[in-house]
Amino acid sequence: MITREDCVARDAADPLGRLRARFHLPPGVVYLDGNSLGPLPVSVPERVRAVVHEEWGTGLVRSWNDAGWWDAPRRAGDRIARLVGAHPGEVVVCDSTSVNLYKLLTAALRLRSDRKIVLTETGNFPTDLYIAGSAAAQHGAEVRAVDTGELHGALDGSVAVLLLTHVNYRTGEMHDLPELSASAHRAGALVLWDLAHSTGAVPVDLNGAGADLAVGCGYKYLNGGPGAPAFLFVASRWHDALDQPLTGWHGHAHPFAMAPRYEPAPGISRTLTGTPPILSLAALDAALDVFDEVTMADLRAKSVALCELLVALADERVPDVRVVSPRAAERRGSQVCLAHPEAHAIIQALVARGVIGDYREPEILRFGLAPLFVGFADVWDAVDHLVAVLATGEWSRPEFRRRSTVT
Amino acid sequence: MITREDCVARDAADPLGRLRARFHLPPGVVYLDGNSLGPLPVSVPERVRAVVHEEWGTGLVRSWNDAGWWDAPRRAGDRIARLVGAHPGEVVVCDSTSVNLYKLLTAALRLRSDRKIVLTETGNFPTDLYIAGSAAAQHGAEVRAVDTGELHGALDGSVAVLLLTHVNYRTGEMHDLPELSASAHRAGALVLWDLAHSTGAVPVDLNGAGADLAVGCGYKYLNGGPGAPAFLFVASRWHDALDQPLTGWHGHAHPFAMAPRYEPAPGISRTLTGTPPILSLAALDAALDVFDEVTMADLRAKSVALCELLVALADERVPDVRVVSPRAAERRGSQVCLAHPEAHAIIQALVARGVIGDYREPEILRFGLAPLFVGFADVWDAVDHLVAVLATGEWSRPEFRRRSTVT
Repeated sequence: MITREDCVARDAADPLGRLRARFHLPPGVVYLDGNSLGPLPVSVPERVRAVVHEEWGTGLVRSWNDAGWWDAPRRAGDRIARLVGAHPGEVVVCDSTSVNLYKLLTAALRLRSDRKIVLTETGNFPTDLYIAGSAAAQHGAEVRAVDTGELHGALDGSVAVLLLTHVNYRTGEMHDLPELSASAHRAGALVLWDLAHSTGAVPVDLNGAGADLAVGCGYKYLNGGPGAPAFLFVASRWHDALDQPLTGWHGHAHPFAMAPRYEPAPGISRTLTGTPPILSLAALDAALDVFDEVTMADLRAKSVALCELLVALADERVPDVRVVSPRAAERRGSQVCLAHPEAHAIIQALVARGVIGDYREPEILRFGLAPLFVGFADVWDAVDHLVAVLATGEWSRPEFRRRSTVT
Repeated sequence: MITREDCVARDAADPLGRLRARFHLPPGVVYLDGNSLGPLPVSVPERVRAVVHEEWGTGLVRSWNDAGWWDAPRRAGDRIARLVGAHPGEVVVCDSTSVNLYKLLTAALRLRSDRKIVLTETGNFPTDLYIAGSAAAQHGAEVRAVDTGELHGALDGSVAVLLLTHVNYRTGEMHDLPELSASAHRAGALVLWDLAHSTGAVPVDLNGAGADLAVGCGYKYLNGGPGAPAFLFVASRWHDALDQPLTGWHGHAHPFAMAPRYEPAPGISRTLTGTPPILSLAALDAALDVFDEVTMADLRAKSVALCELLVALADERVPDVRVVSPRAAERRGSQVCLAHPEAHAIIQALVARGVIGDYREPEILRFGLAPLFVGFADVWDAVDHLVAVLATGEWSRPEFRRRSTVT
């Protein structure tokens, strides 16, 4: 039997435990939703204050030069590049994940214009499916969504691009990124990875896998703040040929020449479109500071340990729930999902107790175990509250059974 | 002869003069670049602090509901709607101007799919031309860019959409929005207005003019901060038919149902795509507070007076420069542009003296006269510095003749 004392001892011995102090975490809260919105890093408020007061308030428009706003998307991109196995100049921070998916999917369809299939899986995050549908239709192509086990077999000569989310948002299941990238290439297709639920929690080696394109999210495990701008990756071998449709002036080779014709900038900058939201971008950049102190390998080791603890405690203490996430660490991201027919009400009851996870359709209790700030005792406490919510029938109170419009 | 004392007296008598105190303006600076980046409103820092510390730091992911983040794009849109003659529910804040142009231009080409021309003018802001070129090419359409005087003649049965920027970014020339909207409709075309250099400085009545679509900028006269999210307008009669290509989950009818098929939300929400940058959006929303205290008519009256003062002083005191902006107020936005062969170096010399305007290719000194915070004495001082820079030859110093990479 695992005791709370065991978990407290593991926290005390955890070399990453010191990093918890890099985040503002409200007292009484066990935060297991960093995969939806990362918590506030202590490095952020002063940085945002300085951008507001000094760079904007005092520097005014001069800060585009003097404070380096113009290059901020590339600077932040280079910092993220290190986390996903990309080279400097291959990643840029911009727009939302959805917008970036559209840019890169369209570019991929243009690079493989003799092929008319976007291959993806049925369980992909909906926005990926929606954007794929739109981009494909504009190219006379179509989306073929298959079950995970059928992906390899569906990779034939008609596939222009394989579009997959590395770690599934519902189940936490993680694809073998190198293997599927190689499989796509053998079929002559490009591969576009959505790293929304990977970046900052799971080691990714895009160049090691020969990946072509990727997008990712700034506000989940990167802790960049609500709606932080997203990022995208284009392998340098594709930079010259990349033809993306959102041809705004920030992607122009000479943006201030105000030339009438679009001429794409060299390198990754051609993926930029409009003026980036500097306040939100600065918060993300400040949030990245903590990653300078850790390796992704160390983060992964702790993430695996946290997930294994949650699975073990669920097996031991909550027989009424089913572990939905893969039990093998190599097939699982940094989250553990449990299924229960009353999952929605259970999550509400847990949130009322200060244990913040979230609900996903259907029947899924989702717990993100972000290794930067979640501790072993947090996991123990979360399961203990879950045991109590189930044992007491607390979840069945009317206030927990109401569905809010936004979850 | 106009004296500085005259101008000081006009400031003292100006009923809008009290609004200058709503902005942080650095001492010693005359800020005539609010049409590039509006200054910091005093309402913003506390709002941003609260969003960072309380909504993000303490509220965490719960703030999507509890702090109203989910509806923030619509709430801010409704506040902007009042400034541009739109109804509540017709404007939403999202993405960048460039991205919004792409969404609405593509939607317009789909609504008029039997027509294959995007009509615009050669002097339009480059990003409008670039995005138009990209959107048109995806529809087998093309961009026809003509000189301003040829617009009416070019509006024939082949035109799907007339795309114009209301106030020209270089010259400050302002189109007759109702007349050109009517002209487009007579030709069976839709009209899409870019209000980047109008909103917050010039009265706009989109519904009065029967306009179909519009986009606009959050960081110029709305003072929303560097890279503040942009906005878009869709007349309610088009909501049900509008089919835009960036079909992200925020535009879905039931975003948390996580349905595999895209079903556009009713109303303006179908134009949304990904998660909005909440920090930047909150700053914009706070910046809009000052507009609750004024009417666009009063702002326009002051803007016209400021522009006429600058033109009169230029005529009187700076014969070496040519007034590029129209002299008739009804054909001019809220900026006055002067031409001089050494404009780039002159602007650098002015900036060094604390008079911040900006340079635009070729030969243009651009001065934005934002009526919320610019005073009559500011205009006098700016011209006085310009006189001095020219009389002393100060602009010819090497440090002012250097071209920076970003202007």
